[in-house]
Amino acid sequence: MTRERLYLYDTTLRDGQQTQGVQFSTAEKLKIAAALDALGVDHIEGGWPGANPTDSAFFEEVGQTRATLTAFGMTKRAGRSAANDEVLAAVTNAGTPAVCLVGKTHDFHVTTALGITLEENIANIAASVSHLVGQGREALFDAEHFFDGYKANAPYALDCLHAALEAGARWIVLCDTNGGTLPHEIGQIVQDVIEQGIPGDHLGIHTHNDTETAVAGSLAAVMAGARQIQGTLNGLGERCGNANLTALIPTLLLKAPYKDLFETGVSMEALARLTRTSRMLDDILNRVPQKQVAYVGASAFAHKAGLHASAILKDPTTYEHIDPGLVGNRRVVPMSNQAGQSNLRRRLSEMGLEVDKGEPALARILDRVKARETEGYSYDTAQASFELLARDELGMLPEFFEVKRYRVTVERRKNKYDRMVSLSEAVVVVKVDGEKKLSVSESMDEAGNDRGPVNALSKALAKDLGRYQEAIDDMRLVDFKVRITQGGTEAVTRVIIDSEDGQGRRWATVGVSANIVDASFEALLDAVRWKLVRDGGQG
Amino acid sequence: MTRERLYLYDTTLRDGQQTQGVQFSTAEKLKIAAALDALGVDHIEGGWPGANPTDSAFFEEVGQTRATLTAFGMTKRAGRSAANDEVLAAVTNAGTPAVCLVGKTHDFHVTTALGITLEENIANIAASVSHLVGQGREALFDAEHFFDGYKANAPYALDCLHAALEAGARWIVLCDTNGGTLPHEIGQIVQDVIEQGIPGDHLGIHTHNDTETAVAGSLAAVMAGARQIQGTLNGLGERCGNANLTALIPTLLLKAPYKDLFETGVSMEALARLTRTSRMLDDILNRVPQKQVAYVGASAFAHKAGLHASAILKDPTTYEHIDPGLVGNRRVVPMSNQAGQSNLRRRLSEMGLEVDKGEPALARILDRVKARETEGYSYDTAQASFELLARDELGMLPEFFEVKRYRVTVERRKNKYDRMVSLSEAVVVVKVDGEKKLSVSESMDEAGNDRGPVNALSKALAKDLGRYQEAIDDMRLVDFKVRITQGGTEAVTRVIIDSEDGQGRRWATVGVSANIVDASFEALLDAVRWKLVRDGGQG
Repeated sequence: MTRERLYLYDTTLRDGQQTQGVQFSTAEKLKIAAALDALGVDHIEGGWPGANPTDSAFFEEVGQTRATLTAFGMTKRAGRSAANDEVLAAVTNAGTPAVCLVGKTHDFHVTTALGITLEENIANIAASVSHLVGQGREALFDAEHFFDGYKANAPYALDCLHAALEAGARWIVLCDTNGGTLPHEIGQIVQDVIEQGIPGDHLGIHTHNDTETAVAGSLAAVMAGARQIQGTLNGLGERCGNANLTALIPTLLLKAPYKDLFETGVSMEALARLTRTSRMLDDILNRVPQKQVAYVGASAFAHKAGLHASAILKDPTTYEHIDPGLVGNRRVVPMSNQAGQSNLRRRLSEMGLEVDKGEPALARILDRVKARETEGYSYDTAQASFELLARDELGMLPEFFEVKRYRVTVERRKNKYDRMVSLSEAVVVVKVDGEKKLSVSESMDEAGNDRGPVNALSKALAKDLGRYQEAIDDMRLVDFKVRITQGGTEAVTRVIIDSEDGQGRRWATVGVSANIVDASFEALLDAVRWKLVRDGGQG
Repeated sequence: MTRERLYLYDTTLRDGQQTQGVQFSTAEKLKIAAALDALGVDHIEGGWPGANPTDSAFFEEVGQTRATLTAFGMTKRAGRSAANDEVLAAVTNAGTPAVCLVGKTHDFHVTTALGITLEENIANIAASVSHLVGQGREALFDAEHFFDGYKANAPYALDCLHAALEAGARWIVLCDTNGGTLPHEIGQIVQDVIEQGIPGDHLGIHTHNDTETAVAGSLAAVMAGARQIQGTLNGLGERCGNANLTALIPTLLLKAPYKDLFETGVSMEALARLTRTSRMLDDILNRVPQKQVAYVGASAFAHKAGLHASAILKDPTTYEHIDPGLVGNRRVVPMSNQAGQSNLRRRLSEMGLEVDKGEPALARILDRVKARETEGYSYDTAQASFELLARDELGMLPEFFEVKRYRVTVERRKNKYDRMVSLSEAVVVVKVDGEKKLSVSESMDEAGNDRGPVNALSKALAKDLGRYQEAIDDMRLVDFKVRITQGGTEAVTRVIIDSEDGQGRRWATVGVSANIVDASFEALLDAVRWKLVRDGGQG
């Protein structure tokens, strides 16, 4: 059976940026675009050139992509030609192969928000789309408030769509801008629209999650004949977010009837990276990944109920609707029961630590992880700190060196030019092979900028470790994440540090304290110790 | 038109407790039950008596409720009578008016997980339900894995339902235990079941959110004829959670066709407390409430896009699918680089700053916000820092005092008991009314714990501000958020600080720097200045 092509249009970089608290830098946009391209979406909407400096910069820097790069804008305003509308010009000047223009289709919005006649609006839509087509671009028309507009004045809403289609729009996208339309209505209206002459293979759907049904609304539209879905990674977007592609993609690829009816640009290999892609976006946003999200959440395949956990051991299909590996996720069986120890042994073995079944240290490791998680530690990402903890319980962690004390000073004062400047200085005292070593560093980088106290501490700690010095000379701190979390009854700071070395290894360590500098120091110390476990000999 | 009764069955205290990381105490369960009762759900499932000590204690202590209290358990095991099954006895001994028993309906699970014959399983269902009815209880039967079972062996799955119904079960609940069934399948199968003799007004639906469609699946079941919905507050539950009642209830009460077809036990007054009820549960769980959730999230009515924000000012219905007040939520128009001048004037007016249209400072404010956001600042939440920025451009910000310099020292060393201890000390030098004032504070709290350098700085800054001291004496730092972000080309730290005062005001300020201590100090400084703008006189 030939499967029909279904297209995925990603708007993480545009509608996703409308999320409260989200403000991507150009560098972050480029990183997300690369991940979207690797995932296999068909369109990447990069932003609104001219409206936002980072959006304009993104289009200048992005280069070649497999997906069709798309600039977003709005239909030309009344009273000027498409060629003379400078807002539209800024959009087309980004030079993307595709342009998506939002326009009104709800009569109430045309007259109250735009304050123009219904005919003028239709003329604006047609002229704007024609202008794009004349420039050789793929034109998309985002029909704003379409569902509300259709319920209020169906003939007018349809006229707007026909104007865009006849002017040459490749895609007409039905937008539920307010997010208030329920899936069964979306299905019904998409069906009506197709019956009234807009072909399904030119129809897209753009839903929002204001009733927690954006994914279902998109699926209903596809069932009714639409062939493009607009959404975002992790469901980012204005208000409650857009349709979540991270949930939609696995459903489309793995579940009947979609998997049998449709083909998308996402391969099974790319699907197996979906969890990682979702976490990468959270990393960029410095958000704690939500655990309970469909397919990619850390709890999505966690079996807490006792009955479930024991059945899962007999046969995973008993309580799993898909194999977690298909989306790059994994099964979690709580540490507390028997399955916890076999999980732990598997994890240790992945780190090169083969431990016998029944080894008493296993239970101690599980207890210590549990106790530390109560204090605010998290070992989900900080694998290197977890390995050190396990090695310690297994008696496989050399001491290497001892930290006697440290001191960091942060000062801010006026310099001789009467400008406020800041500088940090760190002193670290360690004992290596019986010898005391004092090191001091400051936080100034080569450009003369203050990089702060953690930078100074990191440099002082790694400055003189005697015979271990050579092993750590090629390591550097590449990322630093800070979260305030709850440890027992007090708020504490959790710091996660990513380090890298000359062999291209990358490892993450964690520190927790009410004192942010101290939490950072703990994570730095673990980073150095892990590196020494690998390259420092037997201590 | 008479509306049909639709019943809401809450399982927050049972399936909700299967959420990874959730473990309610008995006191917490009692508090949640009271909130559920005030909300107006029809059944409160309190837990599994006998399986869990807090569940047993809950049923002992809960007392009278308007909702029908329900104990959860499983159908009797094979090889003994219902009266002699001690697991079932523990459930019925809780003495609740209703009991819900889960049982198998999927042939594969009966033979592999239970290891009994298909006939034995049906006999167990019938005997267990009869036993409950004989005791005068309302009996509910949770048909586990029903949808998968129906797809595998429809006649057998239906036989199980008929056995329960004929034995006197008031409700037969179709459970999508793995969460893998999509809404259109749920609708179709519910319709089939009704056509095959199970009346809709005896049918319940229990969905999970593993494909992010649990809410839509519940709605599809109701459309097909089911008359009970099982769900949880905030969508708590095993793996990705259960159907979210916090999203379902407003849809059922406010949206066509549901509002016209059905009546529930939830009044409009209770609906207006829904946001508060949802936040209370997060409070109990010590979770940061998710902002982007339907209806009750802090971002659910936040209008970030500039076009949306200006239209909202003309008419809220343009971009809001319901009036936020109906669910006890409120509209947010955040500052961001996508907002226009009208949005800005409205924001300022809410802060008591009336600014004329066309005032040149407006453009300067927007430019400065934009420039600062490029550096890594974010004013979505840090409204107080935004106000200071705006006042500065409007010439309405007194200087109050000047910071000449500060110094913070963090030290970690062994104390006299040979234990590592840390301590921070801060010196802040300010000039107030021409007079230089030096203040020093350390980071120790009353319990003798080190609260870190930001704590020490905060105390030193607020220690002696001369004639302004009185105005800031009642303020305190209540929250502290840190993220690493991109400022220009460099990674910088963004710190957001929440402060509170004796009048119950709460305000957020922001600081950005490569140096985390310096970013914190900037946010602290803004916090003090904002408080002085309010209570410090004319400077």
